[in-house]
Formats: sequence, structure tokens, C-alpha cells
Amino acid sequence: MSNPPMSGKPAPARRLISADKVEGTVVYNRAGEHLGTIDTLMIDKVTGRVAFAVMSYGGFLGIGESQHPLPWSVLTYDTDRGGYVVDLTREQLAAAPTHDTDDEENDLSDTHGRRVYDYYKAEPFWLDPG
Amino acid sequence: MSNPPMSGKPAPARRLISADKVEGTVVYNRAGEHLGTIDTLMIDKVTGRVAFAVMSYGGFLGIGESQHPLPWSVLTYDTDRGGYVVDLTREQLAAAPTHDTDDEENDLSDTHGRRVYDYYKAEPFWLDPG
Repeated sequence: MSNPPMSGKPAPARRLISADKVEGTVVYNRAGEHLGTIDTLMIDKVTGRVAFAVMSYGGFLGIGESQHPLPWSVLTYDTDRGGYVVDLTREQLAAAPTHDTDDEENDLSDTHGRRVYDYYKAEPFWLDPG
Repeated sequence: MSNPPMSGKPAPARRLISADKVEGTVVYNRAGEHLGTIDTLMIDKVTGRVAFAVMSYGGFLGIGESQHPLPWSVLTYDTDRGGYVVDLTREQLAAAPTHDTDDEENDLSDTHGRRVYDYYKAEPFWLDPG
């Protein structure tokens, strides 16, 4: 950016981000607690939409790493924290659907993916595209 | 899949694919020529749609590697080849828009991104979402 910011307005947000920058980004909840890290994005092949951001987390309850698919729409980027924020307590996350990492594409394409969207009260657009 | 395929029909396609599997996938043209490899996907932060698949290629004209953003919609996965196929000759690719890898997110968010979509006669949905 060669121009100074005008009259206190923030610079226009960049509309696009590369998937390899999303991968590895930390996820916090609104209390500022570290929930996990984005591993990868699950893309709907037909519509080219991000169906899920897959977050890995683990350790705070003494268990191994687990993976939580999150609807893209529940993630908000927080520039101050340098990470995503989701409105989710650790207890809610512990009860949230995980998924089978050995077969994640198949697993999330169908009913289990719908269950994840239900949990976050998001619209499972990728099942019945308009 | 525990069930055998029914009456010659292929198994239902998996609807989702993880971004880290797309990254590294080879791209061919319809003549079967190797055009490049997908480096990353550029995601629209707001809508969660893949705006571009960024393909790197280079070498056949003796030049270094260059990067070509492609609209997601021009890529078709070919299971036999194990890669994407685009309807693009090498000459068309050589004349196609490249992009500034130092600032790819800014570069593709605006007019240059529109130019890329124009070149491939695709709809630049990410500029003016409905």
C-alpha cells in the first residue's frame, strides 16, 4: 500500500485469501481461548464452495488430537489476534461432531456433514445446491 | 463402500475434496499435455467460494516458473489421468494472464482478477455477490 489511510478509515479488506494461508491459522473463541488450528478446507467440487474448515485440537483434556469440521460461515477473522474467532465455548466444542480423518471426504459429503451443519445451525448448502 | 457397483453405474462421486489434496494435482489440456500443477486455491473470505485455482507451470519455453490463476469452473477432474483437464492449448496458456505472486491476494481481488475471468469467459462472481 503506497497511499496513507484516509481519515481514519481502515484500508479496504482484501477479498481473497489463499487456502495455504488459512491452513495453520489458529482458532479462538470469544473468551480468547485457543481452540485449535485449521488443518485444511473441504471444497465442494461442483460449486467450488468451502463446505468445511477442518480444525484440529487436543490436549487440554488430556486426550489426543481430534478433528472438528466447522462451517466456513462460523469463522470470523480477527486481525488483532491474527486468528479466527468462533462463538463456541470449550464445552460446546468438546460436544461438537468430530469426523473420521481416514475418510474425511466421504464422511462429510453426506449425513454426517449435515449433522455438523445442524450443530452449528448453518445451512448445508452443498447437499442440495439451488 | 461395502456395496458392489450396481449395473455398471459408477459409484456416486464424492462431493467434497480437501484443499490440501487439490494442491499438488497436475493439470492437463484436452490433448493430454501437462500444463502445470495446482499450487493453492484463492478463497473469497465473505462467500467462502473458490475464486481461483493457482496453477504454476514453466520450463517448456525455457523460462522460469510462472503462475496462472484459473477460475475453479474451468477445471474438470479426470479420474483416468488423476488430474484436472482444462480446455486450453499451450499457446493459449502462454497468452493467459499471470499474476504477482508477491501480492496474490490483493492482485486478484480486483481488476486483475476480473481480467482473468474475462480471459476464460467465466463469471467473476466474487466481485459483486448477489
